[in-house]
Amino acid sequence: MGDASLPKPNILLAFSRELPALLYYELRKRFPGAEITSVTLEPGARIPSEIAKKASIIATYNNLPNPEDAKHIKLIHISSAGLDSIIHEPILTETDIPMTTSSGIHAPPVAEWAVLNWLAASRKFSTTYENQKKHVWGSHEQYGPGAQDHVGKKIGILGYGSIGRQIARVSVALGATVHAFTATPKPTPASRRDPHYFVPGTGDPEGTLPATWHHGIDKASLHTFLSLGLDHVVISLPLTPQTTHLLGAEEFAVLAAHKSAGHSRNPFLTNISRGKVINQDALIAALKKGELSGAALDVTEPEPLPADHPLWDAPNVQISPHISGVIEGYYLRSFDIIRVNLKRLRRGEPLVNAYKRGRGY
Amino acid sequence: MGDASLPKPNILLAFSRELPALLYYELRKRFPGAEITSVTLEPGARIPSEIAKKASIIATYNNLPNPEDAKHIKLIHISSAGLDSIIHEPILTETDIPMTTSSGIHAPPVAEWAVLNWLAASRKFSTTYENQKKHVWGSHEQYGPGAQDHVGKKIGILGYGSIGRQIARVSVALGATVHAFTATPKPTPASRRDPHYFVPGTGDPEGTLPATWHHGIDKASLHTFLSLGLDHVVISLPLTPQTTHLLGAEEFAVLAAHKSAGHSRNPFLTNISRGKVINQDALIAALKKGELSGAALDVTEPEPLPADHPLWDAPNVQISPHISGVIEGYYLRSFDIIRVNLKRLRRGEPLVNAYKRGRGY
Repeated sequence: MGDASLPKPNILLAFSRELPALLYYELRKRFPGAEITSVTLEPGARIPSEIAKKASIIATYNNLPNPEDAKHIKLIHISSAGLDSIIHEPILTETDIPMTTSSGIHAPPVAEWAVLNWLAASRKFSTTYENQKKHVWGSHEQYGPGAQDHVGKKIGILGYGSIGRQIARVSVALGATVHAFTATPKPTPASRRDPHYFVPGTGDPEGTLPATWHHGIDKASLHTFLSLGLDHVVISLPLTPQTTHLLGAEEFAVLAAHKSAGHSRNPFLTNISRGKVINQDALIAALKKGELSGAALDVTEPEPLPADHPLWDAPNVQISPHISGVIEGYYLRSFDIIRVNLKRLRRGEPLVNAYKRGRGY
Repeated sequence: MGDASLPKPNILLAFSRELPALLYYELRKRFPGAEITSVTLEPGARIPSEIAKKASIIATYNNLPNPEDAKHIKLIHISSAGLDSIIHEPILTETDIPMTTSSGIHAPPVAEWAVLNWLAASRKFSTTYENQKKHVWGSHEQYGPGAQDHVGKKIGILGYGSIGRQIARVSVALGATVHAFTATPKPTPASRRDPHYFVPGTGDPEGTLPATWHHGIDKASLHTFLSLGLDHVVISLPLTPQTTHLLGAEEFAVLAAHKSAGHSRNPFLTNISRGKVINQDALIAALKKGELSGAALDVTEPEPLPADHPLWDAPNVQISPHISGVIEGYYLRSFDIIRVNLKRLRRGEPLVNAYKRGRGY
């Protein structure tokens, strides 16, 4: 498909709430030459025929066109990371219109959340904060013991997708080494490549940053990985039956038994996946025993975490309410995937973040 | 000077306090083949002749040999970043024995302190912390407004030395762009190179990371730099008569007037230099007016900051007690410079971090 076959795009934004005016301003700058129109609809409502028929690109969360109105549609871009909520829609089941997800756009804020939590723990930010409230100039003795930076630290990342790769990028910049654990082996450069969308200038799309790669779906493989002498373990893999309670008492014991040589701190656990990947009772026990020097949890089981849950007061735990991916400007970042794919459509190249029908994701 | 001329080094550690046992263990691993001995002396006391005469390398803070005992000394390494406290010692004024400083070793912890403060502010870590104390699962509404990551942000760094360069490295990993301001012009690759010691795997020794370079020692040059649309301004230059009160009411107004297009937040100021580089009253006013969205200050004027000082309660200020460079393992990191220089001595190359006599630093 060459340049000529794709006329000036008519981008329709179909959402159930008003989008901010600044967004249109920014979109017009980023899509020069495109028509940009919008419609506000009830959640899940179909796009009216006369509106859908004028569009060549649709950006939406769950407002879709009827298949018969979609003859001119070149691309439907979904603002969420997955298509779970629209999986049975006829536009998916009855047409071949390319559909793309927003997978990958959360990586920078989630990685920043992770690194924030590491540094807040290692540099005792809460001490600084409490001192300041009291107008107290703290002493070096409050900060020195245990104060370590990340030079030479070993960061183990379970699940090397877009989020894991941006955490890796920042870790390497801090002077740490990255160790990746994936379900399937990644022995070649091609296998280490992640073809999904990356926010420009972030992540590790080629998979060149890990010092070592590890893989497996059995306990033995996982335990080998957890025996590397890791300073940090990051959980950035999806919740599946196989990953439910992936980390429990045994795993925390393995981590503690192999804590990094020459470092005084035990491993620190970071979870930005789902609460159920961890056996939470075992986590509380591991924190109490000091097997883990701390944990940063953006996800818990259940959510919200009840006020009387013992996790709140476990030693050295930092809990946030599933907000690691929250940023202003979400839509703008999501729609950058349209920009990338318009170029690819013009060149006849495969789309990034394309939904593959029949594979269920 | 070839390999043969440098016999097995006899490294003497001369300090006024006992060094940790772990340090000797680590040093023996890192200097295989070296003799490592130590002596504990009163602060500033000379090293006894019979001990000094056996050493070929001395590592110290301010315990120096008499010149007549130093015939076999190839190198004296000082554990501080500068030599201010020993500048009039005869070993400096009467001999040519190479002396090296520990300049550069603070860069990783100071950069981590800076990035911690940026992220704590942008991601409202204090809200998370206060919620957790109360066992409250916060709402997205507490976090969404103003939540931004650093993708595409402009980081302006005043003084592009070892600390500025490590802040640059992390900034670029976060997806931001770096803009460097130096006193003298840096038009060529050679001029952008920093020959000082860098902790391996950190910093920007070649000066390749800044998107743009700026320079000058006059107000006009500084104001041009502050007009770039910066999201962050980092002060990482030394305090000199020229940099005293470098940033005041005028500069904060310039920053605010040119705040980054499309970003809802005003610039954020980070000071890891000395309190006097800022006009502190003007800073308080700028924070109150919202010209700055916040400030992270590891240094104040005076130190300690008195309990009744208004800076403590200025809006969106984060104050820590001059601890950005504090880490465990300081000596080990300092002594890595000896390792680097032993190699250079063997090859007859110029030493890194060498004190240049007669230049006063």
